[in-house]
Amino acid sequence: MNNYKLTIQYDGRKYNGWQKQGNTSNTIQRILESTLADYLRLKYDCTTNPEISGSGRTDAGVHALAQTANFKVSLILDLDCLTTDLNLLLPLDIRITEVEKVDEHFHARLSATGKYYSYYIDNRLIRNVFDRNYALREEAPLCMSEIKKAALLLCGEHDFLSFSTASKTSKLTETKSTVRTIYDIEITENDGLIRLCFHGNGFLYNMVRILTGTLLEVGRGNISTENISDIIAKKDRAFAGPTVSPHALFLDKVDY
Amino acid sequence: MNNYKLTIQYDGRKYNGWQKQGNTSNTIQRILESTLADYLRLKYDCTTNPEISGSGRTDAGVHALAQTANFKVSLILDLDCLTTDLNLLLPLDIRITEVEKVDEHFHARLSATGKYYSYYIDNRLIRNVFDRNYALREEAPLCMSEIKKAALLLCGEHDFLSFSTASKTSKLTETKSTVRTIYDIEITENDGLIRLCFHGNGFLYNMVRILTGTLLEVGRGNISTENISDIIAKKDRAFAGPTVSPHALFLDKVDY
Repeated sequence: MNNYKLTIQYDGRKYNGWQKQGNTSNTIQRILESTLADYLRLKYDCTTNPEISGSGRTDAGVHALAQTANFKVSLILDLDCLTTDLNLLLPLDIRITEVEKVDEHFHARLSATGKYYSYYIDNRLIRNVFDRNYALREEAPLCMSEIKKAALLLCGEHDFLSFSTASKTSKLTETKSTVRTIYDIEITENDGLIRLCFHGNGFLYNMVRILTGTLLEVGRGNISTENISDIIAKKDRAFAGPTVSPHALFLDKVDY
Repeated sequence: MNNYKLTIQYDGRKYNGWQKQGNTSNTIQRILESTLADYLRLKYDCTTNPEISGSGRTDAGVHALAQTANFKVSLILDLDCLTTDLNLLLPLDIRITEVEKVDEHFHARLSATGKYYSYYIDNRLIRNVFDRNYALREEAPLCMSEIKKAALLLCGEHDFLSFSTASKTSKLTETKSTVRTIYDIEITENDGLIRLCFHGNGFLYNMVRILTGTLLEVGRGNISTENISDIIAKKDRAFAGPTVSPHALFLDKVDY
């Protein structure tokens, strides 16, 4: 079988997330799979329907600059036109940005060594009209130095159970490790637009949104920086901050 | 009378442009005027309905980072809360970013000394999903050096009649000068996103969109740079390039 790696950009606003599920047609994965099947039929007269496996799920409403996925087919595909052809068939808020033929053992999720996610917060004096669909609005001034201190405490290898939502489908927390490593949380502010960029070896369900919700509570003075290590140690979702809205979260990059 | 200057940011996508016209309720000016009238009634129990005069029209679909306008009222308004209060009443795609009390002779249009407009072109290899509503898609590679040469020829004081659409309402071209000065056209490219920033003392109806359409034709090789001075000299709309889409045009700033 030939193994192909896709890099995909999408505006998640209209979609029910990455993962296909039950009868929900409106997921990125399902749209990509049905587009690929159409394409293979139209171009190669081939009725195969390959599964496209992503590097991981993104929640409903979350965006991606460079999600990755792979699929296997017995055909050798013409890579010169594959990207352009697939983009002709896809909606404008989903783009394939790259296709590569990869080793047959490559697996978009299992081969990944790291991921970057960014969360945007509009902390300007006046809410910006152009960011309104891609940044969380925060009216109150935030204490950035406390947020940065708390972020440092979250970095490293920890059991992040406090920062994850128990998944109904995968029962992740019951059967699998909730230990992850955050390599870095880079925090930048540009004219009132705050970006929290999380780089880790993997993230649990809702983890980036809960980490952000917790850091926001620190910035507002509702959670004290000294409590961060305690919150990690509790291994109890109830002690961390809220799960913030998905509309301001971007999967920036997946490392292999 | 007290004279107030407003600075306004808007996402023009949903609106029929700045200017109120006939029965069209869906213009920025009309929404601002009705919001201000509501506010004056609610807060000051005052039934005045001041006209809000903009620095100029923006076409349907055009955006503004900092449109300016002024209005006069006999009341002295509390500036500390005016911006916040008006923003509470306005839709999220229109924001007042500043309110100032100005000299009674200040006139948003007549007092303006210069304007900056930016036009964005997505010339990336793969169309970007996040720019799709704010940049014009151009598939073909563009010759940037020719665009820059042509832009230089457009700078300076010229009769820009060739670069304007005869306005049905104002009959601008019949009664008023079509001479304008372009101080500068700054052209930058960042990873395939091209920005044409026009700075001039004023712009005719559709002028920035026709200038951009002409520069695009130069970049595609359909209009030769040497012809630019001829096109200006002809004073005939038929010789310039097409009027490009409004969705990628931003009024950045008005100088006084």
